Amino acid sequence: MLTEPVFWLAPAGVLAGVVFAVLFYRDMLRQDAGSAQMQRIGGHVQRGAMAYLAQQYRIMLLVFLILAALFATLAFGLDVQSRYLPVLFLAGGLFSALAGYVGMQTATRASVRTAAAARYSLAASLRVAFRSGAVMGLAVVSLGLGNVVAWFLFATTFMPAARGEGAGLVLVTTTGLSFGMGASLQALFARVGGGIYTKAADVGADLVGKLERGIPEDDPRNPAVIADNVGDNVGDVAGMGADLFESYCGSLLAAAALGAAAWSQDPAMQLKAIIAPLAIAGLGILLSVCGVFLVTTKEGAGQKQLLSSLSRGINASAALIVLASAGVLHLLGVANAWGLWGAVVAGLVTGMVVGRATEYATSPGYAPTRKVAAQAEGGAATTLIAGLGTGMQSTAIPVLAVAVGTLLAFLCASGFDLNQLNQGLYGVAIAAVGMLSTLGITLASDAYGPIADNAGGNAEMCELGPEVRERTDALDSLGNTTAATGKGFAIGSAALTALALIASYIEVVRLELLRRGETLLTLDGGRSVPLAEASLQDFMAHYNVTLLNPVVLAAMFIGAMAAFVFSGMTIQAVGRAAAAMVEEVRRQFREDPGILRGDSEPDYARCVEISTLGAQREMIAPALLAVMVPVLTGLLLGVAGVIGLLAGGLAAGFVLAVFLSNAGGAWDNAKKYVEEGHHGGKNSRAHQAAVIGDTVGDPLKDTAGPSLNILVKLMSIVAIVMAGVTVGFSLL
Amino acid sequence: MLTEPVFWLAPAGVLAGVVFAVLFYRDMLRQDAGSAQMQRIGGHVQRGAMAYLAQQYRIMLLVFLILAALFATLAFGLDVQSRYLPVLFLAGGLFSALAGYVGMQTATRASVRTAAAARYSLAASLRVAFRSGAVMGLAVVSLGLGNVVAWFLFATTFMPAARGEGAGLVLVTTTGLSFGMGASLQALFARVGGGIYTKAADVGADLVGKLERGIPEDDPRNPAVIADNVGDNVGDVAGMGADLFESYCGSLLAAAALGAAAWSQDPAMQLKAIIAPLAIAGLGILLSVCGVFLVTTKEGAGQKQLLSSLSRGINASAALIVLASAGVLHLLGVANAWGLWGAVVAGLVTGMVVGRATEYATSPGYAPTRKVAAQAEGGAATTLIAGLGTGMQSTAIPVLAVAVGTLLAFLCASGFDLNQLNQGLYGVAIAAVGMLSTLGITLASDAYGPIADNAGGNAEMCELGPEVRERTDALDSLGNTTAATGKGFAIGSAALTALALIASYIEVVRLELLRRGETLLTLDGGRSVPLAEASLQDFMAHYNVTLLNPVVLAAMFIGAMAAFVFSGMTIQAVGRAAAAMVEEVRRQFREDPGILRGDSEPDYARCVEISTLGAQREMIAPALLAVMVPVLTGLLLGVAGVIGLLAGGLAAGFVLAVFLSNAGGAWDNAKKYVEEGHHGGKNSRAHQAAVIGDTVGDPLKDTAGPSLNILVKLMSIVAIVMAGVTVGFSLL
Repeated sequence: MLTEPVFWLAPAGVLAGVVFAVLFYRDMLRQDAGSAQMQRIGGHVQRGAMAYLAQQYRIMLLVFLILAALFATLAFGLDVQSRYLPVLFLAGGLFSALAGYVGMQTATRASVRTAAAARYSLAASLRVAFRSGAVMGLAVVSLGLGNVVAWFLFATTFMPAARGEGAGLVLVTTTGLSFGMGASLQALFARVGGGIYTKAADVGADLVGKLERGIPEDDPRNPAVIADNVGDNVGDVAGMGADLFESYCGSLLAAAALGAAAWSQDPAMQLKAIIAPLAIAGLGILLSVCGVFLVTTKEGAGQKQLLSSLSRGINASAALIVLASAGVLHLLGVANAWGLWGAVVAGLVTGMVVGRATEYATSPGYAPTRKVAAQAEGGAATTLIAGLGTGMQSTAIPVLAVAVGTLLAFLCASGFDLNQLNQGLYGVAIAAVGMLSTLGITLASDAYGPIADNAGGNAEMCELGPEVRERTDALDSLGNTTAATGKGFAIGSAALTALALIASYIEVVRLELLRRGETLLTLDGGRSVPLAEASLQDFMAHYNVTLLNPVVLAAMFIGAMAAFVFSGMTIQAVGRAAAAMVEEVRRQFREDPGILRGDSEPDYARCVEISTLGAQREMIAPALLAVMVPVLTGLLLGVAGVIGLLAGGLAAGFVLAVFLSNAGGAWDNAKKYVEEGHHGGKNSRAHQAAVIGDTVGDPLKDTAGPSLNILVKLMSIVAIVMAGVTVGFSLL
Repeated sequence: MLTEPVFWLAPAGVLAGVVFAVLFYRDMLRQDAGSAQMQRIGGHVQRGAMAYLAQQYRIMLLVFLILAALFATLAFGLDVQSRYLPVLFLAGGLFSALAGYVGMQTATRASVRTAAAARYSLAASLRVAFRSGAVMGLAVVSLGLGNVVAWFLFATTFMPAARGEGAGLVLVTTTGLSFGMGASLQALFARVGGGIYTKAADVGADLVGKLERGIPEDDPRNPAVIADNVGDNVGDVAGMGADLFESYCGSLLAAAALGAAAWSQDPAMQLKAIIAPLAIAGLGILLSVCGVFLVTTKEGAGQKQLLSSLSRGINASAALIVLASAGVLHLLGVANAWGLWGAVVAGLVTGMVVGRATEYATSPGYAPTRKVAAQAEGGAATTLIAGLGTGMQSTAIPVLAVAVGTLLAFLCASGFDLNQLNQGLYGVAIAAVGMLSTLGITLASDAYGPIADNAGGNAEMCELGPEVRERTDALDSLGNTTAATGKGFAIGSAALTALALIASYIEVVRLELLRRGETLLTLDGGRSVPLAEASLQDFMAHYNVTLLNPVVLAAMFIGAMAAFVFSGMTIQAVGRAAAAMVEEVRRQFREDPGILRGDSEPDYARCVEISTLGAQREMIAPALLAVMVPVLTGLLLGVAGVIGLLAGGLAAGFVLAVFLSNAGGAWDNAKKYVEEGHHGGKNSRAHQAAVIGDTVGDPLKDTAGPSLNILVKLMSIVAIVMAGVTVGFSLL
C-alpha cells in the first residue's frame, strides 16, 4: 500500500483536514464574542448543548458496551465473528461521537461570534460562520478517512490472516465494515435523538409562544427559546455530522470491500482497487480546503452575491475533483480507469441533480411551494393536503436521478456488461465516494446554517439593532438554500451506499462459509462451483435470491413496512415529547405572569431538561427496531430473506425519506413565503394555516426523513455484522 | 372441462348469484319509497349519480376504443399480441362498468326505501339496506365468474391453437388476463374518479358548511349536500364494486394461468388445476347467498345485536367455505389437495387478520384512534402528527399478516419445497381466490354502508323525526365497522393477486418467445434448456432477475416512486377539485342570502356538475401514469426491469396504501369520538382540530389509498399485456 505514490493522497488529505480544522477553530476563538449579555445567552445555549451531549453519550456508552460484550461473546465464544469486531465497532461509535462533539463545540461558540461580527460587517460575519462550519466538515472527513486508512495499515501489517493478498485483503476490508456499524448506530442515535430534541423544543416553543400567546420567534420571554436554539445545534450540527460521518465511512469501506472482492484473483489490481476510493477521498479533502478559501464576499453584498460566493467554493471543489480524479485514477493504473472516472462523475452529477430537485420542491422561489402557500388561504386542511400531495410528487426526479446514476455508474465501471456484477457494483460504491468526496465543503455549508440561525436568535434575544438582525437573516436564509443541496447529497449517497453494502453482504457470507470449512457452492441442477471463485450470480442462484422466491418477496414487504413503522415511531415520539414541552411552557406562563411582561426570566433549564429526557427515552425503541429486524429476519428467513429485506427497506425507505423531507421543506418555506407578505402576510388566516403546516412538517423533515437515510444503511450493516449468525443458525 | 362434475359448481354459482340478485332487487323495488319530499331528494341523488356515470362512461368508452385500436394494431399489424386481446379487453371494461351500474341503480333506489322503512322498524330497514347491498355483491361475483367461465368454454371450443391441452391451455388462461386488464383500467377510473368526486364534494361541503357557516352535516341548505350524497354512491358503491370485480377476476385468471403452467406437462392435472379456483368461487357464491339469509335482526336490537347478525352471515359463509372447499378439492382429485386447501385457509385467515388489524387501527373503541382524539386538545398540528404517526405504525400487522400468509400458502401448495415455484405461486393465487370466495356477502356488507349513510342523509334533509335518524345512525355506524373488514379483504387480496400476476408475467414471456420461434433458453455458463420445459428459476437466471442486478434495483426504485407519485397526483387532484367546490358554495351563499335562511333552494345541480367535471378532468393523468410506467420500463429496461418495477411498486404501494387508509380512518373516527362528547365534544377547540384531521384524511383514505390497490395490479396486468412489445423491442 505504502509503495503506491497515489496512496499518499489519503494521509495528506487527512493531515490537511486536521491542520485547517484546528486553524479555523483557533481563528474563530480569536474573534470578538460580543457583549456580556450576548455571552450569557450564548453560554445558556452552549451549556444546554453540552448537557444534552453528555446525557446522550452516557446512554450510548451503555448500549455500545452491551453490544460490544455481545459481539465479543459471538466472536470468542461461538467463533462466528471476527475478533477485531468489538474493537472496531467501539471505535466507529467513538470517532463519530468525537466528530459530533467537535462540531458542537465549534458551532455553539461560533454563533455568538457571528452575531458579534454582524454588528459591524456582513463579510466578517459570513467568514466566521462559514469557516466554523468548515471545522465540522473537515473534522468529519479527516476523522473518517483517517480511521479507515489507519485500520487498513494496521490490519495489513499486524493481522496474520490478512498479510497475504487475495482473500486476506477481502477479509481486512469486510472486517472494516464493523467500524461502519459503530458509526451507523451512533448516527442513528444522534439523528433520532437530535431530531426529537430539536422538534419537541421547536413545536413546543411555536405552539404556545407563537400560536397561543402571539409572541415572536426567538423572544427571550419564551421559556422554550433556549431549548429551541440548543435543538438547532443538536439536530443540524451533531445529528447531521454523525449522519454524514457514517455515510462517508460506509461508502469508503463498501468501495474497498467490493474492490478487494472484484479483483481477489489479481493481487496487484486488488490493492489499487482498494486505494482508489481512499485517494479520491484524500484529494477531495485537499480540494475542499481550497474551496473554503474561495468563499468570501464584499461588504453590502445582496442575497444573490452571498449565494454565488458560497456556490463558487462548492462548485470549484466539484469541478476540480472531476478533473483531478481522472488524473489520479490513471496515475494509479487501476483497471478500467476511465470507466471508474465515469462512475465518480455519475455520482457527483446525481448528487447535484438531487440537490437541485430538492431545492425546486422546497424553495419559495418555485411553483410547488408557492402552490402550497396559496392553499393556505383555504385553511389548514387544504394546506396539509397540498403539502402531502406535493411531497409525494416531488419524489419523481430524485428517485429517477438515483436510478439513472446507479445504472450509469454500474455500466461505466463494468465496461457496459451487466453480468460483471463485481466490477459494476464496485462502480456504484465509487459513485458514492465521488458524491461525498467534497463533503468537507458541502458539510461546511450545512453546518453553517444552524450557526447563522443561532446567531440570529442571539441577536433577537439581546435586542441588537435591526441592521444586525438583517445581516443574520441574510446569512440564515442563504443557509436554508445551501441546506437543500446538502440534503441532496445525504439522500443520494445513502441510497448508493446502501446498494453497495447489500453487495458487500454477499462477500461476508462467502468468507463466513469459507471460515466454516465449506469449499463448494451448490447450484441449480446439482452443479457446484468452488466457493472461493463463485461469482455473485452464483450466490444469487445458490440462495435463490430472485423476485419469485416467496421468502424474498415476503421479506421485501417486511423491509418496506419497517421503514414506515420506524418513521411512525419517530414522528409519534416527537409528538409525545412536544406535548410535554407544551405543558411545561403553559405552566411557566401560568405560574409566573412576570415572564410574559418581561419582568422575570423564565426557567430555560427546565425546558432544556425536558427535551433532553424526551429525546433520550424515545430514541431507544426505533434503534432497537433497526437492529432487531435484520437479525430476526436473518434467523427466520436466512440469506435470501435478509437481501429481500434490505432491498425492500431501501426502495421504500429511500422514497419515503424524500417524501417526508420535501413535504416538510415545502410547508416550512410556504410559511416563510406567507410571512413575506403574500396571501395576507403575518397573522392572517392564511398565516395561521401555514404555521400549522410547518409544525406538522417539522418532525417529518427533521426527524423521520433524515433518520430513514441512516436506517437503510444501519439495517444493511447490521446484516453484514450478523452474517455469521445468519449463516450458522437460520431456520431456512 | 364439462366432464368434471365439480366444474358445474361454477355455473351453478353464477346462476344462483344472478337469480338472487334479481330477486333481491325486485324485492327492494316493492318496498315503500316514502313521502313525496323523500322521493324528490332521492331523485336528486339518483339523477346526480347517473349523470356522473354517464359522463364517466363516455370518457371511458373513448379511452377504451383508442386502446383497443392500438392493441388491434399490435395484434394484427405487428403480430406481437393475441388477436383476441382487443375484444377481451373491451369485455373486461364493459362488464366491470355493468357491475358498477347495477350497484348504483340499486343503491340510489334503496337508500330512500331504507329511510322510509326506518320510520317504522329497524329490522325492516336493515333488511332493505343489506339485501340491496347484496344485489351489488352478487352482481359483481356472478358477472366476474360468469365471464371467466364463458371465456374458458369459448376458447377451448373455438380457438384452434387452444384446442390441445398443455401449452394450449396455458395460452387460453394467459390470454384471459387481457380481460383482467379491461377490468383493472375501468376499476382505476372508477376508483380515482369516484374518489375525487366524493372527496371534492365532501371537503367542499364540510369546509364551507360546517367550518365557515356552522350548519350541521347533511343540512339541505348546503348547496354541496346532494353532491356529497351522490359521492358516497360514486365512490363507495361504483368505485368499490369495480375495484373488487377487478380483484376477483384477477385472482381467478391468475390462479388459472399459474395452474395451467404448473401442470403443463400433465394434461389431466392441468385441467383440474384450472377448474379448482372456478369451483371454489362458484361454491363461495352459493354460500354467500345462504349467508345473506342469515342476516336478520329483531326489532329494537342494539348496536351489538346488529353487528352480531351481520357477522353471523359473514362468518357462517367463511366457515362453510373452509369445510366445503376441502371436500371439493378432494372430489376434484387435484394434486396435493390438502396443500391447496391449506392455501385457501391461509388466504381466508389472512383476510380476517388484516380486517381485524384495520378495525383496531381505526375504530374509536381502541387505543390508537383514542390517542389521536386526545391529541386534538393540542390543536390541529398535534392531531395531524399523531394521525400520521399512528397510520405509519399501523402497517406492521397487516403487512406481517400478508407476508406470513403468502409464505404459508406457498409452502402448503408446494409441499414445503421452496424450489417448486410453479406449484407454490399457484397456491398464492389460490389463497387470493379463497380470500375473495365469500366476496358476494363481504361486498354486500360494504355496499350496505353508503346505502345506510344516504338513508340517514335523506332522513336529515326531510326532517324526519329523531327516532328515524337514530335508526339510520345505528345502521350507518354498523356499516363503518363492517367496512373495515371489507377493506382488509380488498387490501390483502390486492397484494396476493399482484404477486400471482407477477408470476403469470413470466408465463406470458415464455409463450411470446415460443411464438417468435425460439426453442431454447440460454442460462449462465453457456448452458441452455428447452424453452417449453424451462422452470421459473431458469427464467430468473436467463433474465438475471436477482436483487444485485442494477437494472432490477433501479426499476424497484422507480416502482416505489410510481406508487408515491400516483398517490400525490390523486391527493392533489382532490385538493384542486375541492377548491373549486369551496368557491362555488361560497358564491351561492354570498349571492343568495335566502339559502342560509332556508327560504330558497340552493343550486344543487351546479355542485354535482363541478364534482363530475373535476373527477373527469383529474382522472386522466394518474391513469396515464399507471399505463405508461410499465410500458416505458419494459421498452427501456426489458423483462428484468419490468419485474423489478412490479416488485418495488407492490412492496411500497401495498404498505403506503395501508398507511393512507388507516391514517385517514383514524382521523375520521377520532372526530366521531370527539363528537360523542369526549375532549370537549362538538364545537370545542378539540372538535375543530379533529375536523381538520378528518378533512386531510379524506383524500388519503378514500382516494389515494384504495386507488393504490388497483395501481399495483394494473401495472402488473399492463406489463403482461405488453409483454410481446417488451420482448420484441426492449433496449436491454
